[in-house]
Amino acid sequence: MKKGDLTRQRIIALAAPIFNRRGFEGCSMQDVMEATGLEKGGLYRHFGSKEELAAEAFLYALEQTVKTRTDGLDHIPGALPRLAYIIHRFVDIPSPLAGGCPLLNTAIDADDGNPVLRKLVRKAFADWKKRLAAIVAEGIRAGEIRRTANPAQLANTIIATLEGGLVLSRIDGSREPLNNVEASLALLLDSIAAPVRT
Amino acid sequence: MKKGDLTRQRIIALAAPIFNRRGFEGCSMQDVMEATGLEKGGLYRHFGSKEELAAEAFLYALEQTVKTRTDGLDHIPGALPRLAYIIHRFVDIPSPLAGGCPLLNTAIDADDGNPVLRKLVRKAFADWKKRLAAIVAEGIRAGEIRRTANPAQLANTIIATLEGGLVLSRIDGSREPLNNVEASLALLLDSIAAPVRT
Repeated sequence: MKKGDLTRQRIIALAAPIFNRRGFEGCSMQDVMEATGLEKGGLYRHFGSKEELAAEAFLYALEQTVKTRTDGLDHIPGALPRLAYIIHRFVDIPSPLAGGCPLLNTAIDADDGNPVLRKLVRKAFADWKKRLAAIVAEGIRAGEIRRTANPAQLANTIIATLEGGLVLSRIDGSREPLNNVEASLALLLDSIAAPVRT
Repeated sequence: MKKGDLTRQRIIALAAPIFNRRGFEGCSMQDVMEATGLEKGGLYRHFGSKEELAAEAFLYALEQTVKTRTDGLDHIPGALPRLAYIIHRFVDIPSPLAGGCPLLNTAIDADDGNPVLRKLVRKAFADWKKRLAAIVAEGIRAGEIRRTANPAQLANTIIATLEGGLVLSRIDGSREPLNNVEASLALLLDSIAAPVRT
C-alpha cells in the first residue's frame, strides 16, 4: 500500500467511531482534524468533502461489524444453528466500534438526513437481509426448515428484533432486552423447524 | 382551564412534533417561538428551560401515541387477540405525531444525551412492557397461553420487534418490514398458545 493510501485508511479508521457516535451533523471536519492531527489541507487532499469521508467511514464501520458478527460462521453446520449463531453473536458481542451498531446509528441518523448515507445504509440492510434469507432458503431445501417458512420475512424479523433489542438495552442500560429477544427468536426458529422424520 | 394553562398546553402541542422530528439538540427555543408566535419572555413565563419544555412535549407525544395504539383495545376479548390487536395497530396506523414514534426517536436521541428525557423514555418503555406483560400473565392464568411462556420476555420481544421493524421500514421507505414483523409475531403468539383441550 502506498503512503497516501495508508494515510487515507488511517483517517477513515479514526473518523469512523466519531461519525458513529455523533452522526453526520454532529461530526465536523474539525473533529476529524483533531483526531488525526492533520491540517485542513491534508484532510481535503484525501477526501473531497465531509460527505465522502462519512461514506467511507460508514463502509469501514460496516465491514468491521459484519466481520465481528459472522466470524466463525463457516464452521457451523446446518441452517438453524447458523441463524442461532448469528443471533447469539449479535447479542453477545458488543459492536467493535465505539457508539454501538453503525447500521442502527446510521439508519436513524440518515432516515431524514444525508441521502448518500441513507442509500449506503439501505444497501447494508438489504445485503444483511439477503444473507439471512439465503440461509433460511438453504434450510428449506435441505429439509431442515418447513417449506411454509418465508425467507425474506424471517430475515427482516431477525434484523428488526435484534436492532430493536439493542435500542431497548441501550436505553435500559441492561442486557435483559437483548437476552429476551435471543430467547424469543430461539422459539421462533423452533417453530419453523421441519418435523423430524422418523 | 385557565387562560395561562391553555397557552401552556398550546405551546406543548406545537413543540412536540418539532422535538419529535429534530431531537433535543436539533430543536431550539427559537424554533418553538416561531411555531407558537410567542416572544422569548412569553415562552419562558411558562417553561423555565428548554429541558422542561422538551420533557412536557415528550409526555404529550407519548400520551397521544399510547391513545392511538390502544384505542378500542377494551373491546377485544382474550389475551392473544389483545396482543395481536396492539401489534396490528402499531403496524397499521402511523404515529399521530410528525416524525414517527416518539419512544423510538427519544430513545435514540437521549441514549447518550439529555438525562431527563432518558429517564422519561426509560419509564415509558417500562410502562409499555408492564402493560404487555400483564396481558400475557392474564392469558396464562386464563389457560389461553402456555404456562412456560415468560411475560417479561415476550413483552420486551414485541416492543423490540415493532420498533426495529419501524427502523427498517423508515430506511427502506416501504411497509414490508413492518408487515413482516407482524406476520412473525403472529407465529410467535401461535407458538405460545396453550393446546386446545378436547
